Amino acid sequence: MDIAFRPRIGLIGGSRAEKKFLRSAEEVGRLIARREGILVCGGKAGVMEAACRGAKSAGGLTVGIIPGSNKTEANPYVDIVIATGMGYTRNSLVVMNADVVIAVDGEYGTLSEIAYAIVYGKEVIGLGTWDIAGVVPAKDAADAVERAFSRLGMPVN
Amino acid sequence: MDIAFRPRIGLIGGSRAEKKFLRSAEEVGRLIARREGILVCGGKAGVMEAACRGAKSAGGLTVGIIPGSNKTEANPYVDIVIATGMGYTRNSLVVMNADVVIAVDGEYGTLSEIAYAIVYGKEVIGLGTWDIAGVVPAKDAADAVERAFSRLGMPVN
Amino acid sequence: MDIAFRPRIGLIGGSRAEKKFLRSAEEVGRLIARREGILVCGGKAGVMEAACRGAKSAGGLTVGIIPGSNKTEANPYVDIVIATGMGYTRNSLVVMNADVVIAVDGEYGTLSEIAYAIVYGKEVIGLGTWDIAGVVPAKDAADAVERAFSRLGMPVN
Amino acid sequence: MDIAFRPRIGLIGGSRAEKKFLRSAEEVGRLIARREGILVCGGKAGVMEAACRGAKSAGGLTVGIIPGSNKTEANPYVDIVIATGMGYTRNSLVVMNADVVIAVDGEYGTLSEIAYAIVYGKEVIGLGTWDIAGVVPAKDAADAVERAFSRLGMPVN
Repeated sequence: MDIAFRPRIGLIGGSRAEKKFLRSAEEVGRLIARREGILVCGGKAGVMEAACRGAKSAGGLTVGIIPGSNKTEANPYVDIVIATGMGYTRNSLVVMNADVVIAVDGEYGTLSEIAYAIVYGKEVIGLGTWDIAGVVPAKDAADAVERAFSRLGMPVN
Repeated sequence: MDIAFRPRIGLIGGSRAEKKFLRSAEEVGRLIARREGILVCGGKAGVMEAACRGAKSAGGLTVGIIPGSNKTEANPYVDIVIATGMGYTRNSLVVMNADVVIAVDGEYGTLSEIAYAIVYGKEVIGLGTWDIAGVVPAKDAADAVERAFSRLGMPVN
Repeated sequence: MDIAFRPRIGLIGGSRAEKKFLRSAEEVGRLIARREGILVCGGKAGVMEAACRGAKSAGGLTVGIIPGSNKTEANPYVDIVIATGMGYTRNSLVVMNADVVIAVDGEYGTLSEIAYAIVYGKEVIGLGTWDIAGVVPAKDAADAVERAFSRLGMPVN
Repeated sequence: MDIAFRPRIGLIGGSRAEKKFLRSAEEVGRLIARREGILVCGGKAGVMEAACRGAKSAGGLTVGIIPGSNKTEANPYVDIVIATGMGYTRNSLVVMNADVVIAVDGEYGTLSEIAYAIVYGKEVIGLGTWDIAGVVPAKDAADAVERAFSRLGMPVN
């Protein structure tokens, strides 16, 4: 598929997380790549790195919009690093550049991204994340990715 | 008090709100001004305008960090307009420039500000706003302002 | 004059400068304050600090839009610190928040601000700064301030 | 070459330009693509669009960091659109995400990018652009691209 038309799936979550969430994020990344989605995230460690690693293991493309001004700050599985030098203020840009968002675990930084995503009219699918109005809960990684692509009019079947 | 040392109280909430919240916000603004606090907000209508009006009615000083690039976009009770041209991305800057934050009502934009405030280590006091971990509920405007100044080591008595 | 209607004079220039430029900047700050202008600058050392010191010596009001996220980073003569956490990217916001701009000396950061000011349709008056099309040269501090206020329709006589 | 290690060449210039500059920009884009460089630009019309078209005609990869918040605003030859919603303030991010910068023609927006590039320590190579200290003049598109890659330690021979 032409790169400019591939769906962009935002993946948000903390830079530290328990193993079970890292495993979910990695699976989410892998499944996004298999569906030819571009993974857009904050480019750092934890959930973001696990998702990028999953996406790369399946030949996917990853974009990391990072807080710092130096691309070496990104995790090693980010293909296209976008440095901002704006710190957490970049959270807004992460979800602005996704067609739909999957949130895995996460604390207050993730909460700011969930809020922005909803402000921007993007659906947020949640895996073990903040239980607030507007977040659609998924039961596992496969369900989250299925919901994300369905939302974009690209269901599996 | 020297202007550079006056406490900065962030006031967040929606650009549209029910009358009862507008009344609370106005009272919060008035009380902040009486305590020589500087009111920092997003500079727009609704809860922000009500709070600024309250602050000005008591001779206070108001700062509005607005989404647009033109200062005429601010509500008429803002003294110092800071235009950003960054849209909602400016939400991060509103709370970054407060020593403590009071949230009145509000939807997802306010939620993004609550989240950022906590990321930045600022206490958030809530009046009829999002009920999430980390927000300290207040029972009315006076209680909210009292909690805010106490947090800064400036209790009434 | 009501604070919201006082003219905002942007003052741009480097965080290090020779004594003669610091003296000019201080004089510019003093004269802006005497005319009830609000001095808007980047809030750091050098030319910015000298101008703020001048403005405060004449009872003026100063705004500093700083690169970092902590207000303690501002020079001690800034009244209203606006932290951005955006590094040099904040240069755009400094001139966006001025009605007219005076540039004193300066290197490439100042050049970015001159360029932005012109993009935003603000007149730039120069004192020993970049000699490029669009910058109106002044012969000294008094001339620069006179030109700035004249531009805003507020000439001395 | 692994996408994360491909050199990133920033291409800056106006959204309107004379034909001769559009032709140069297109040739620059084509040559960057042939050398496996990633073209990073502001994603809009004029010089940016011409360069992206050139890069795509040679099978290259293009990144456009745009002022608006909607990816449809990018020119049709941008592969990876990064929306910012920050207007001209995004100019800083364009050059922050390049290893070296080529400026073609351009007005004050381009001047702000040249200034930022130098602040960030990136070499700027100029083709018919601002004649200021720090810009290395090139004689044509091929020379500009050769200088850019040489700067990155990747000369042709």
